[in-house]
Amino acid sequence: MDNITKLVDTFKEQGLLLPIWYEDGAIKVLDQIKLPFVEEVYTFTDVRQVADSIRTMVLRGSGAIGCAGAYGMLLAAIQYRGGKQDIFEAAGLLKSTRPTAVNLMKTVDEVVQAVKDAPEDGIADAVELAVCNILSRYLAYEHALGEYGADLIQDGDNILTHCHSGALAGSGYGGRALSVIRKAHEQGKKIHVYSSETRPYLQGARITVYELQKFGIAHTLITDGMSGYLMQLGKIQKAVVGSDRVAANGDLLNKVGTYMHAVAARENGVPFYTATSSHTIDLSLARGLDIEVEYRGEQEVLSIAGHRIAPEGIRALYPLFDVTPCRLISGIITERGIVRAPYTENIKALFSK
Amino acid sequence: MDNITKLVDTFKEQGLLLPIWYEDGAIKVLDQIKLPFVEEVYTFTDVRQVADSIRTMVLRGSGAIGCAGAYGMLLAAIQYRGGKQDIFEAAGLLKSTRPTAVNLMKTVDEVVQAVKDAPEDGIADAVELAVCNILSRYLAYEHALGEYGADLIQDGDNILTHCHSGALAGSGYGGRALSVIRKAHEQGKKIHVYSSETRPYLQGARITVYELQKFGIAHTLITDGMSGYLMQLGKIQKAVVGSDRVAANGDLLNKVGTYMHAVAARENGVPFYTATSSHTIDLSLARGLDIEVEYRGEQEVLSIAGHRIAPEGIRALYPLFDVTPCRLISGIITERGIVRAPYTENIKALFSK
Repeated sequence: MDNITKLVDTFKEQGLLLPIWYEDGAIKVLDQIKLPFVEEVYTFTDVRQVADSIRTMVLRGSGAIGCAGAYGMLLAAIQYRGGKQDIFEAAGLLKSTRPTAVNLMKTVDEVVQAVKDAPEDGIADAVELAVCNILSRYLAYEHALGEYGADLIQDGDNILTHCHSGALAGSGYGGRALSVIRKAHEQGKKIHVYSSETRPYLQGARITVYELQKFGIAHTLITDGMSGYLMQLGKIQKAVVGSDRVAANGDLLNKVGTYMHAVAARENGVPFYTATSSHTIDLSLARGLDIEVEYRGEQEVLSIAGHRIAPEGIRALYPLFDVTPCRLISGIITERGIVRAPYTENIKALFSK
Repeated sequence: MDNITKLVDTFKEQGLLLPIWYEDGAIKVLDQIKLPFVEEVYTFTDVRQVADSIRTMVLRGSGAIGCAGAYGMLLAAIQYRGGKQDIFEAAGLLKSTRPTAVNLMKTVDEVVQAVKDAPEDGIADAVELAVCNILSRYLAYEHALGEYGADLIQDGDNILTHCHSGALAGSGYGGRALSVIRKAHEQGKKIHVYSSETRPYLQGARITVYELQKFGIAHTLITDGMSGYLMQLGKIQKAVVGSDRVAANGDLLNKVGTYMHAVAARENGVPFYTATSSHTIDLSLARGLDIEVEYRGEQEVLSIAGHRIAPEGIRALYPLFDVTPCRLISGIITERGIVRAPYTENIKALFSK
């Protein structure tokens, strides 16, 4: 495992904030549930532990889950004692943790293909190579996406972001939205970020500001209902959010609350961008409202960080995502370039490049 | 104090939920900070205690503060041992607690006038009469406003409300927004209310749902970022919020987050109403964005119910209100009737009725 060891070393030298990495024959995972108050790192030696960390959201974010798929397969290869069947079973286990996570499917399948192509005695090497390729490619995507997006950011911009679309949700540079912001910051642009807290799970208050603090980028925490007023006052110049899925027409599925920021942005003439891997664009999905949004348990809304806020007997709702129609989106920033309206045509063109 | 005793008795018989009342020579105040988990009632025998309860937000909401102005003056009259000067000083003290609270100014001034007009030996009676008049009038306003507003609500409506504009913020029936909702419910209309939690102070999660539960009205708690998605799905038919102030052109100043609900409502064709006392309409204020909005301490955003949610060193913002432009408002429901666009003309007409 020399190659992966070296790769992780270079990642750390580059100042990456890794959600998951290889170290001394094991996989390390930072617990994102305990952030920001506790920085707990787990050491996993079994692929089932990696799968559990995805399922329980200890590890989260589409890019990070893609990386976890690769690292999970790496562990399966390290555990390998003969018989490709075990590795294929590990692939099934990993994919079952988040059946709708496109990146997870793709990275696991890529490693599966490498296993299929490898001779019985070359499986560990083949998997290590495939995993290194995936991780390097993911990082290159973040830099490329960041470069494209940073061109849209001007010196002095105040940028709104929602939820967490950062390094720990990606492969360590800045994920999606925060790659744009981090790159603009590294270009010397004086920027300031408004991070909306993102109730009920508070990813903005817990993780986005944690990363911005680590990266030395000026920021202010606001509640989800405040962005509109700040836009009215002219205090926000751009909005950049991540995405969980983009439909073929450019509709955006992202953490609930995104849509209301987008509507307020349109109302106030603030450009609203999503930063996303081109893999998140689902050409089989005609429009966003066709997606059946997952509802989580009401407990998240009824309490905050385990502390009950509403009276007993109250019911609550928690749709995980909402849909931002393409007409509210000023551009889709991907690692392949920026897509603008008309989206249906230009998304097709993006993939035929 | 027989008259005020009798009046409070009839209030209780009518099923009012009182934020403040007279009882056995003292003033009782329900602590709204401790709601919904603790229903603590304080017994005040000094006007300074009433003033403190306004200042510390133990007692809150424009209608309730107006009542507290009256009850505070009642205590001053009960404490009275000769010399009107003491009562005028009490008036000054009460008005100083919230210098921008129009209702507080008006009710205190009304009692002051009664004191001025009364003979030295008739002050207690004059004050008691003035206070009874104020309380009865406030309650009549809530019923009238509720009747007007309930006409807009249809059987089967799902109604969004934000923050808390209910009985405990008013004189006990339903305040402003919840008077509309309570009246529609009492008319036998099958309605359901979405209460947005209203970060950072959580008035929706703590108090609005508490009242809806007491009134037996079906309701669901959501976070502030969810209303837009529910509107997209066609799950919200009306929005009714209170108001802290209305400008002469119909612009609405209300708890931060209101504006984003209004923008989402417009985007989805959902009628968006504010329910307010006509006294809240400030003809001297040309437009909403002229108001300098108060900013509160960032601690409210950085923590929830005393529990820190963001990392150390993070800064936050807490503008108390935002401004909803009149063009997003479908109607202003008052105790004098419903005002519709064009607001500048129709607000003037409302006051010349």
